[in-house]
Amino acid sequence: MVSGGARAVARCDALGVPPYSDAPDMLVRFFLTPAHAATQAAIAGWMAEAGMATRIDAAVNLIGRYEGEDPAAPALLIGSHIDSVRDAGRYDGPLGVMLGIEAVAALHATGRRMRFPIEVIAFGDEEGSRFPAAMLTSRAVAGALEAGALAVTDGDGVTLGEALAAFAPSPLRGEGWGEGESRLAIHPDRPLSQPSPRRGEGFIHSFLSAARKPHSTLAYLEAHIEQGPILDSENLAVGTVTGIASQLRYRVGVEGMAGHAGTTSMPLRRDALAAAAEMVLEVERVALDEASDVVATVGRLSAAPGAPNVIPGRVDFTIDVRSGDGARRDRAAAAILAELAGIAARRQVALVSELVQDLPPSPCDPALMDLLDAAIAAAGQPVRRLVSGAAHDAMIMAALCPTAMLFIRCAQGISHNPAEHVDPADAEIALEVMLGFIQRLGDHGDA
Amino acid sequence: MVSGGARAVARCDALGVPPYSDAPDMLVRFFLTPAHAATQAAIAGWMAEAGMATRIDAAVNLIGRYEGEDPAAPALLIGSHIDSVRDAGRYDGPLGVMLGIEAVAALHATGRRMRFPIEVIAFGDEEGSRFPAAMLTSRAVAGALEAGALAVTDGDGVTLGEALAAFAPSPLRGEGWGEGESRLAIHPDRPLSQPSPRRGEGFIHSFLSAARKPHSTLAYLEAHIEQGPILDSENLAVGTVTGIASQLRYRVGVEGMAGHAGTTSMPLRRDALAAAAEMVLEVERVALDEASDVVATVGRLSAAPGAPNVIPGRVDFTIDVRSGDGARRDRAAAAILAELAGIAARRQVALVSELVQDLPPSPCDPALMDLLDAAIAAAGQPVRRLVSGAAHDAMIMAALCPTAMLFIRCAQGISHNPAEHVDPADAEIALEVMLGFIQRLGDHGDA
Repeated sequence: MVSGGARAVARCDALGVPPYSDAPDMLVRFFLTPAHAATQAAIAGWMAEAGMATRIDAAVNLIGRYEGEDPAAPALLIGSHIDSVRDAGRYDGPLGVMLGIEAVAALHATGRRMRFPIEVIAFGDEEGSRFPAAMLTSRAVAGALEAGALAVTDGDGVTLGEALAAFAPSPLRGEGWGEGESRLAIHPDRPLSQPSPRRGEGFIHSFLSAARKPHSTLAYLEAHIEQGPILDSENLAVGTVTGIASQLRYRVGVEGMAGHAGTTSMPLRRDALAAAAEMVLEVERVALDEASDVVATVGRLSAAPGAPNVIPGRVDFTIDVRSGDGARRDRAAAAILAELAGIAARRQVALVSELVQDLPPSPCDPALMDLLDAAIAAAGQPVRRLVSGAAHDAMIMAALCPTAMLFIRCAQGISHNPAEHVDPADAEIALEVMLGFIQRLGDHGDA
Repeated sequence: MVSGGARAVARCDALGVPPYSDAPDMLVRFFLTPAHAATQAAIAGWMAEAGMATRIDAAVNLIGRYEGEDPAAPALLIGSHIDSVRDAGRYDGPLGVMLGIEAVAALHATGRRMRFPIEVIAFGDEEGSRFPAAMLTSRAVAGALEAGALAVTDGDGVTLGEALAAFAPSPLRGEGWGEGESRLAIHPDRPLSQPSPRRGEGFIHSFLSAARKPHSTLAYLEAHIEQGPILDSENLAVGTVTGIASQLRYRVGVEGMAGHAGTTSMPLRRDALAAAAEMVLEVERVALDEASDVVATVGRLSAAPGAPNVIPGRVDFTIDVRSGDGARRDRAAAAILAELAGIAARRQVALVSELVQDLPPSPCDPALMDLLDAAIAAAGQPVRRLVSGAAHDAMIMAALCPTAMLFIRCAQGISHNPAEHVDPADAEIALEVMLGFIQRLGDHGDA
């Protein structure tokens, strides 16, 4: 007999190929695509096998509900996302959904119910791969979304409203669609298969109605691969997340003087790329010198005009600075910007920097962290707390309810890459911890 | 009355806009475009006014011939190119053609002929802006081109053969097209306006027939803006070019490890962009430390995957190293490559470098340099010799005949830029020097 953790991993593997991917040779599963619909259908089947009633909410999240002894009690929500980046690994997101299903399956197998209902939620958009906005679906559920954020268009010019209208009506929609929390503007005179801008607007409007009421939810638990190397380097299967790092993102432009690479002598140059190269190294040095959890990255850089025989006159790049501690992050960012200004002055290039993103730290709930730690210890594992450098749906859900997050080791910390790998034995441990957490949450609630 | 130098500058200005540019808001004149055809037609008119017979050779160069007392004598060829980079200045290339026309016009105005014929040639492709190959047209004339080099395709997928076949038949073609040196494969049954791959092949084949016979040409003289700051910084109008710098060009690839910008701690990173940034600074440092005429440039750099939240795993860049002295150039390049290997080893990234271009230094003819110096002194100007960091058609023509090159000051050394500027007074001086050179070449030949 296959145990739950291994089955969760195997199901992620099964979802790594068409029809659950929109590409034949790599995993690509964007929001509201045929692959998304096929994946929802497969997962809904597994939810039903685990004793759950399934539905799709107004933000197109798939939800399986396992009733509690008290159906009116606020539900424990266990979830993660099922969309992917392009050429993705198979576990970033889906593993948390599969482990939620396995936790319920384990209760269901022994006919056990908690006092509170458990809902497993498969969010549709965390990565933001399709539309220029991320975590649209958890933001909708948490009530942390404004209508203006939905005015987005994908790379093919399809608006979110049109994509919602065109999304293949799943068999599930017939059942749960529009049930209570979802009030989709479906007009009987316009069949679903003929999207119109007007109907698109109706879908956009109802998208926001996926918002859950405050205090309607007991807690949110998310299991997710670490996407970093800490657990792997310390030989740990799982870790308790203390919060999600605060993040600053800048756009930087450096303007020097383009010139002929053969005729402009070295001392007369104002080379924008040489200046930017110094800046890139300064970004790295400041973060290294901090010797803390601060990370700073130049991920995108372009040099213009970009000819081998022309000195670059203009360079644009991004800086991403993160830390679990907002003040530490701000100190590092200020040091970086000061160093950049010094380099620009010395090299006589113009420097413009613009803050384009400022995400505050999002701490997990201390009481829930204690429950997770206890469950980890009870599973015979060392307790390790760590901050998440990456953003997750849990960060958003913290606006709705107390959240907990369990990290699972991934080999060498590799993620957003087909080489992403999770040991099924680690998934077993994670499942045991999640069941221990659910048990303790029940005891905790009763206490 | 406008003098010849000012008129040469004014004609370059007139050619800076449509129909002599293929873009409404900037100067873009690529090989074999409508702008090229319109520019040929305008220049042919000016050549005819100056007493020249015009024709187009098999490599689509426009040639104006001013007969000598001895029509069988090898001709003095005066030329430069009329193609441009994108968003170009107006003088890089055309000024040399216009000054050649003015030199002949000055002889023609007084009914004077040299013993030797003078031909003014407007090369069609020096910059290599359209096809991934440069100086195709002077290489064809100098007989320094192999058929394989013509198997090129532009950014729109048009082959050189197709572009040749589609090039608007100019009125000039009717006259001089196919005359002696050009044997174009024109089939009467296929009108020129309907290009076919087969006819394209014919054009490619005949392109090579633009080659002039050895000893058919007395000398090649090219006047060109310096495209560098030396004359401007020394307050000189003109200078004698001693030769064209030797050049090495490398493609470099740096392979690190992509990773999540939020989750990969600084010490665990193998950031390809941080490594490349160190390398860019090392390229600059080696050339600066040389404190000679060595210049080294990273002109093109791309970082992948290129997302703000992903540590770059792969960076590709170019290195261009030049010096008037081949050994000095090689020493600098070897030092750079050694430093890069050290950086790669220390940062644990993979480094691959490939030499993609090795142009030896191309010295100008010493006797012709003396004639230019004498003409400069006779024009009341200080004699200054300088190496050309940029490549020019003269470098190619040296394979056919002795070459001389006269540099003209351009403001602040700015070139490949709409801000390119030439003082008409400097063009007057250049014209006087060219006429003095032609006179001395006649005396020299007679001596």
